[in-house]
Amino acid sequence: MRIIIDAMGGDNAPQEIVQGVLNAASKTDALFTLVGEREAISQCLAHGAAGITRFELVDAEHVITMEDDPLTAIRTKRHSSMVVALELLAEGEGDALVSAGNTGALFSGATLIVKRANGIKRAAIGTLLPGVKPCLLVDAGANVTVTEEYLEQFAVIGSSYMREMYGIANPEVGILNNGTEEGKGTALQIEAGKRLRAHEGINFIGNVEASAVMAGACDVVVCDGFTGNVFLKASEGTGKQILSSLKEVYSENLITRLSYALVRTRMRKSMKRFDPSEHGGSPFLGISKPVVKAHGSSDAVAFEHAILQAIRYAESRIGFDTPKSGS
Amino acid sequence: MRIIIDAMGGDNAPQEIVQGVLNAASKTDALFTLVGEREAISQCLAHGAAGITRFELVDAEHVITMEDDPLTAIRTKRHSSMVVALELLAEGEGDALVSAGNTGALFSGATLIVKRANGIKRAAIGTLLPGVKPCLLVDAGANVTVTEEYLEQFAVIGSSYMREMYGIANPEVGILNNGTEEGKGTALQIEAGKRLRAHEGINFIGNVEASAVMAGACDVVVCDGFTGNVFLKASEGTGKQILSSLKEVYSENLITRLSYALVRTRMRKSMKRFDPSEHGGSPFLGISKPVVKAHGSSDAVAFEHAILQAIRYAESRIGFDTPKSGS
Repeated sequence: MRIIIDAMGGDNAPQEIVQGVLNAASKTDALFTLVGEREAISQCLAHGAAGITRFELVDAEHVITMEDDPLTAIRTKRHSSMVVALELLAEGEGDALVSAGNTGALFSGATLIVKRANGIKRAAIGTLLPGVKPCLLVDAGANVTVTEEYLEQFAVIGSSYMREMYGIANPEVGILNNGTEEGKGTALQIEAGKRLRAHEGINFIGNVEASAVMAGACDVVVCDGFTGNVFLKASEGTGKQILSSLKEVYSENLITRLSYALVRTRMRKSMKRFDPSEHGGSPFLGISKPVVKAHGSSDAVAFEHAILQAIRYAESRIGFDTPKSGS
Repeated sequence: MRIIIDAMGGDNAPQEIVQGVLNAASKTDALFTLVGEREAISQCLAHGAAGITRFELVDAEHVITMEDDPLTAIRTKRHSSMVVALELLAEGEGDALVSAGNTGALFSGATLIVKRANGIKRAAIGTLLPGVKPCLLVDAGANVTVTEEYLEQFAVIGSSYMREMYGIANPEVGILNNGTEEGKGTALQIEAGKRLRAHEGINFIGNVEASAVMAGACDVVVCDGFTGNVFLKASEGTGKQILSSLKEVYSENLITRLSYALVRTRMRKSMKRFDPSEHGGSPFLGISKPVVKAHGSSDAVAFEHAILQAIRYAESRIGFDTPKSGS
C-alpha cells in the first residue's frame, strides 16, 4: 500500500501535512510518496522520528493555492504538487491520494487526470455529517446542478461507501428535501424519488429534511452540490457559533473556569464530532482510484485521520476500476 | 392596535397560545381577537389574570392540522380558525395576525385571502438566523423555485424589514451561494447578482456562504425557499445535536452536574439564541398586511414574543398597502 501525498496543499503545509504523514506511518505499514518542494519536505521529515526509508520524495516546484481558479490551475500549473500527485496516482505509482489543498482544483484534477470510474456520469464529494450517527452527504459541493440520474448514482456509490467503510449492511438512503411527503421539492427530487423507489439494491427511505438527517434519519443523503454545500456550511457555521458561545461562557470568571475544569475531558470528547477537521477527509466518489480531500485547515492529527481513511478506502472492495475513457 | 390570533394553531393550542396572549396583553395596550373554539378559549382565558375586556372571541369550529395539505386545507376548511382569522385580517377587523399553525397553509391562506402587496410577484417567509448578529433569511421555505426577479424583491422587502424592525440604516444584503466569487452558483444566483449590483438603494455585498452568514456577514440573505429550508433545518438540527450532547455531558454524574450548576444561568442565556422557539416568529414578507408565523412548538413565552413582534411589525413603516388584486 502506497499513499501519495500532496505535501504542499492546505493552510498548514508542509509542516502539519508531513507531521500527519509521520503520525500515520507510525500506525500502519503503508509507504508514502510526498510530492512538493523537496527541501521543505526534507526538513519537516528530519524533525520526525520515523524511519526515513518508507518515504519517497517527488519534486514539484509549484503550488495550487486556495485562491486559484480550479480548472485554470489544473490546466496551467502542470508542475504543481497537486497535479504531479494526481498524475502519479493515475499512472499507478500509488494506491490512494490525500490532499488538503484547493477542493475545486483537486476535484477537477481527479476527474480530468485520474478519470471517473466506468459508467459513472458525474463524480461527487462525500462528507460525513456530525449527526447522531455518521451520515454521508453526497454531493457535498462538486456539482452545482445535477440530474435525477446523477442523484441515483450518488445513492449507489454512497451506499457502497457506507457499506464497505462503516460495515452498514443495508444503508438507508434519503433524498434531501423540504418535507417528507412524496410530492415535495422540485422536479429533480420528485423524479429522483421515482428512480430510487424503483432501484433494487438501494434501501430508499424517501425524502428527509436536514434536521432529520442530523437526528440520524439515514446513512446516506443525496442532493445537488449547491444544496449540499449550504447544508454543510450551515451546520459548520452553527456549530462554530455555539462552540464560541460556550467558550465565552466558560472564560467569563474564576467560577466559570472552574466549572469548565470539571468537565473538560468529557466536553472535548463530546464536542469533537462537531469539529470538521476531526472527521478525517471527504472521499471523492465515482473516481477510478481513491482520492481523499482533507480539510484545508488540517493540522497533523486531522491529516493523519485523512490518511488512515484513505488507506481503508483503498483496501475496501468499493468498485474502483479502469478509468472511464481508458486513458 | 388589534391583533388577530389563530388560537387553535400549533402543537400546544389553545392553552399555551392563550397564555401567550395573556402575557403579551400585560405588556402592551393592544386588543386581541381570538379565533377558535369559544368554550376551550374561554376556559384558558378564565385561568389568566388579565382583564377580560380586551379579548374578543370569534367562533371557528374547525382546525387546520400540521398534517393537512396546505392548499386543500385553506380551500376546504373555510370554518377553520386559521381561515376565519385570515378573513378577519383581510376585512380590516385587526392590524396583524399571529398563528402557530401549519406554515404552508398559513402562507397559502395569506396569499389567497389577505393577498400580496401591490407590485410583489411572490411573497416569502423571513426567518431570523441565530448567528453573531440577527440576519434575515428570505425565503425560508415558501417558494421552492424562484426567479432572479423574485430574489431581487426579497432583497428589497427584507432590507425594509431589517431597517424598520431592527433600526439598521443600510442593511447589507447577500445572495446565499456556494462561494463568494461572482460567477458562483447556478444561473439564478448569477443573474440575481447582476440585478442586485445594479439596484440602487440595496446595499448588496455579493455572494455569501452559509457559514459566513452565521458569522455575521450580512443583515439579509436571499435564496430560493428550498435552499432556505435546508439552511434553516441544518442549522436547527445541528444546534439540537450540540445542545443534546451538552446535556449528556452534564447529566453524567455528580461532578458534571455541579459543573453545570456553576454556569447554569449564563449557559441558558447564551444558548437561548440557538433555540428556534425563542425567536418569536417568522414574518411573511410581501403580504399586504402583517402576518407572523410562530413556531409550531411555541409555548406561551415563544408565542408572546411572536405577538410583540407582530405589534412592532404593524407599527412599522414597512410598506403594507392595498392588496394586489384589489379584492
